Amino acid sequence: MDISDWRSRIDELDRKLVDLLSQRAQAAQEIGKLKLTAGMPVYEPDRERKVFDNVLGANVGPLIDRDLQRIFERIVDVMRGIQQPETAPAVEPSGGDTELDNDVND
Amino acid sequence: MDISDWRSRIDELDRKLVDLLSQRAQAAQEIGKLKLTAGMPVYEPDRERKVFDNVLGANVGPLIDRDLQRIFERIVDVMRGIQQPETAPAVEPSGGDTELDNDVND
Repeated sequence: MDISDWRSRIDELDRKLVDLLSQRAQAAQEIGKLKLTAGMPVYEPDRERKVFDNVLGANVGPLIDRDLQRIFERIVDVMRGIQQPETAPAVEPSGGDTELDNDVND
Repeated sequence: MDISDWRSRIDELDRKLVDLLSQRAQAAQEIGKLKLTAGMPVYEPDRERKVFDNVLGANVGPLIDRDLQRIFERIVDVMRGIQQPETAPAVEPSGGDTELDNDVND
């Protein structure tokens, strides 16, 4: 396979990633609605830790755990953002990453 | 479905995401080797633009394009990092995001 073959493969994988991320976003929105009804906070550190545990537990490489975690920190950050309008009208405008994310990267 | 059902669904989606990201990383490593042989640079802005075009073209929501792009900026940043050892011995230690990423977030 040459570079253009591998790139076609990556484009195909990316479209599948978009599909899974869209499904994940739908689930996050549903959870946001249920949290709103239950008066629960959007940010739940225990749950986020479990998300990372699940992800790293599924990792068989070649990505190292730290890199996979960096990707999921961004995913979790975005998903938390889309739950926000359901549960809290005041959204911080910066769109910054989580504290955990900053710890890992800075 | 209650919150725990949706969370089980998310955990399942996350494991599928890990699988696709692992496949994407393998492809990136293969491209890294081919680039090394061909003396090509790791960072190719035109190709990265095409990656984002492909991703955003596949977006049917509920994520907005900006959020999907933020996730893929992190993915592309990580994938560029794993190509680096194949093509350049001096890796910048910061692990920071791309300039594009900073433009979007700051």
